[in-house]
Amino acid sequence: MRTQVAVIGAGPAGLLLSYLLHSEGVEAVVLEARDREYVRQRVRAGVCEQPTVELLTEIGLGDRLVREGLPHEGFSLRFDGQDHRIALTELTGRSITVYGQQEIVKDLVDAHERQGLPLEFEVSDVAVSDVDTSRPVVRYVDAAGVSQVLECDAIVGCDGFHGVSRPSIPDGGLQFFEREYPFAWLGVLAQTPPSHEELIYTHHPRGFALHSMRSPEITRLYLQVDPGEDLSAWSDDRIWSELSLRLAVDGEFTLREGPILDKGITPMRSFVAEPMRHGRLFLAGDAAHIVPPTGAKGMNLAVADVRVLSRALVSLAKGDPTPADAYSDTCLRRVWRAEHFSWFMTTMLHTDPGADAFARRLQLSQLRYTASSRAAATSVAENYVGLPFGG
Amino acid sequence: MRTQVAVIGAGPAGLLLSYLLHSEGVEAVVLEARDREYVRQRVRAGVCEQPTVELLTEIGLGDRLVREGLPHEGFSLRFDGQDHRIALTELTGRSITVYGQQEIVKDLVDAHERQGLPLEFEVSDVAVSDVDTSRPVVRYVDAAGVSQVLECDAIVGCDGFHGVSRPSIPDGGLQFFEREYPFAWLGVLAQTPPSHEELIYTHHPRGFALHSMRSPEITRLYLQVDPGEDLSAWSDDRIWSELSLRLAVDGEFTLREGPILDKGITPMRSFVAEPMRHGRLFLAGDAAHIVPPTGAKGMNLAVADVRVLSRALVSLAKGDPTPADAYSDTCLRRVWRAEHFSWFMTTMLHTDPGADAFARRLQLSQLRYTASSRAAATSVAENYVGLPFGG
Repeated sequence: MRTQVAVIGAGPAGLLLSYLLHSEGVEAVVLEARDREYVRQRVRAGVCEQPTVELLTEIGLGDRLVREGLPHEGFSLRFDGQDHRIALTELTGRSITVYGQQEIVKDLVDAHERQGLPLEFEVSDVAVSDVDTSRPVVRYVDAAGVSQVLECDAIVGCDGFHGVSRPSIPDGGLQFFEREYPFAWLGVLAQTPPSHEELIYTHHPRGFALHSMRSPEITRLYLQVDPGEDLSAWSDDRIWSELSLRLAVDGEFTLREGPILDKGITPMRSFVAEPMRHGRLFLAGDAAHIVPPTGAKGMNLAVADVRVLSRALVSLAKGDPTPADAYSDTCLRRVWRAEHFSWFMTTMLHTDPGADAFARRLQLSQLRYTASSRAAATSVAENYVGLPFGG
Repeated sequence: MRTQVAVIGAGPAGLLLSYLLHSEGVEAVVLEARDREYVRQRVRAGVCEQPTVELLTEIGLGDRLVREGLPHEGFSLRFDGQDHRIALTELTGRSITVYGQQEIVKDLVDAHERQGLPLEFEVSDVAVSDVDTSRPVVRYVDAAGVSQVLECDAIVGCDGFHGVSRPSIPDGGLQFFEREYPFAWLGVLAQTPPSHEELIYTHHPRGFALHSMRSPEITRLYLQVDPGEDLSAWSDDRIWSELSLRLAVDGEFTLREGPILDKGITPMRSFVAEPMRHGRLFLAGDAAHIVPPTGAKGMNLAVADVRVLSRALVSLAKGDPTPADAYSDTCLRRVWRAEHFSWFMTTMLHTDPGADAFARRLQLSQLRYTASSRAAATSVAENYVGLPFGG
């Protein structure tokens, strides 16, 4: 078998890349280890930056996003029992849209199927080779159990942090940058309307809490917990009472409770692999970099990678390798901005068990300054809504 | 002997406080351990925020400052061999004035002497007592060797980090917040015109460097060194060649060399004591808090303390203790903003020998962002020129 671009992984990065390539006349095959339903249901991020929304709209995939997505023009920053609004749109002229990552994935899977674009689920034993040549190869076993050899011009690893793409690059081919945090997020999905029309990011001495939503009927909530926390120690009652404590504010606020549909613990990590390319193997999204979720940057960063990479691969197909050679450097500028912002939001909002008294006072001063200075709030807002693509 | 306010220390904080109190009809006596010439020559900070300049002008002490001070409307931020300008005035509408702390001290000493205000140099064995009563007492030995007892309504410790005031507060009366940094500044005063019309803050893999000035003929330069560095290891030649390496930039820049008039090593520390008051003993300036010099905040913070305290003591003299009771809380908001900004500038600009690869990349991303985002540059600028007094 032969194609122009082999894409490993059918998350938002891989599917969007394949779609963008096909729309520019470049053939791609997407290979995914999981089955179709798993991929379509996998709950992940929920905040789309404006550049992400614009790109999806521009390529004709914005209809349901515009219909069902919840546009937000600000979010709440809570600390010391006070609520402060970061007026995203007033400060930056841009906004965000709350629309689950799995919804974008569903839209992309549906678009592939409608147009008959090659997308294989339940593949196994994926192995990458010959990436140092101009004819790299992906070997895999398809859903029917048949071994396949896919020859191509370029392979793109969109298979996440735990995927096979990055580890297939030989030792010394990548430099790693990493940070682990002394906390994790306990996330719950609850069948109750949101308690506030906007997201609420809360710094509390007992730990960070986040009030978010998936739809007008479904609330998404998070609590900072220890990284080694046992989920079974968190009954629904304990979760609600802890959320109430941390989200409390002087004045009117009532947390709406409801049946908890799902709960899980997510570790917090910062990670970057450089460069984002080895020969004809390119890495995009979580395969190349991880951010802690506090800045809502993970999926948006994957979209930004793919926007740059699709253009680079179109040029490569036309015989011009220059944009592909610049791919890693171009993306890493945005990646490091997002890494810095995600680290900044994470350290500003969480309670670090190892922080000394001086660090705790600095943190409070940073929060107060962000809430009171237009310049500081604008800086948070412009990062949150997403800096423009490219450059 | 009896006065209304006993001020310990004739630095800018103590002298300015005494001057402000007298101008409002409150009697004060300033006691200083050093001799007159030492105090007038002691080289310290050189950057006056706009609120500092405005206050000195308002009280009639701005003539020489306006004549000899060097107004600056921006500074340079250098890294990666590139020069970026932080346009202070364009971004904030305010500016800074380069005018040595010792010049302000000279102006204040001269003003005291002109008006015959009580100012005693070379006092020793200063001891503070009865601060829990409304008649606190300062005992000391005057320049002539005579023991003196000064009864007053309030004592103000403006005697710096190593002074007697803060340690006279009993154990448990204060909470301390502290941070030591893994570097120090080697500062030199050179007899050569500045190499650039504005200050240059440089982040370089070999360490931070700062180009500043005292006058059109005198340049002030700093190099990040190890905290345990031996000054004798730094010949003039080594200093100039290290400065040239760190301040180098792609394109036109030549460092002007000249005879080194003075050199010394300054440790870097962040420190806050809370509250800034114990009974009738008030602390102001370095006696209560220290910032690393990177943000040029130390003297300006002392001036801000004294502006608030002079009003509080005038009210106290009129029988209203409310502003004096609020003194510590009022000042600490600004103190922590300055502590945060000074820590931020210090960590953004220095090379931390203990930083891992991830932290070094974050630092570079922060620098690039500050140089490229108007909001980020405005945030740095508004802190640098000084947020308005009070509030």
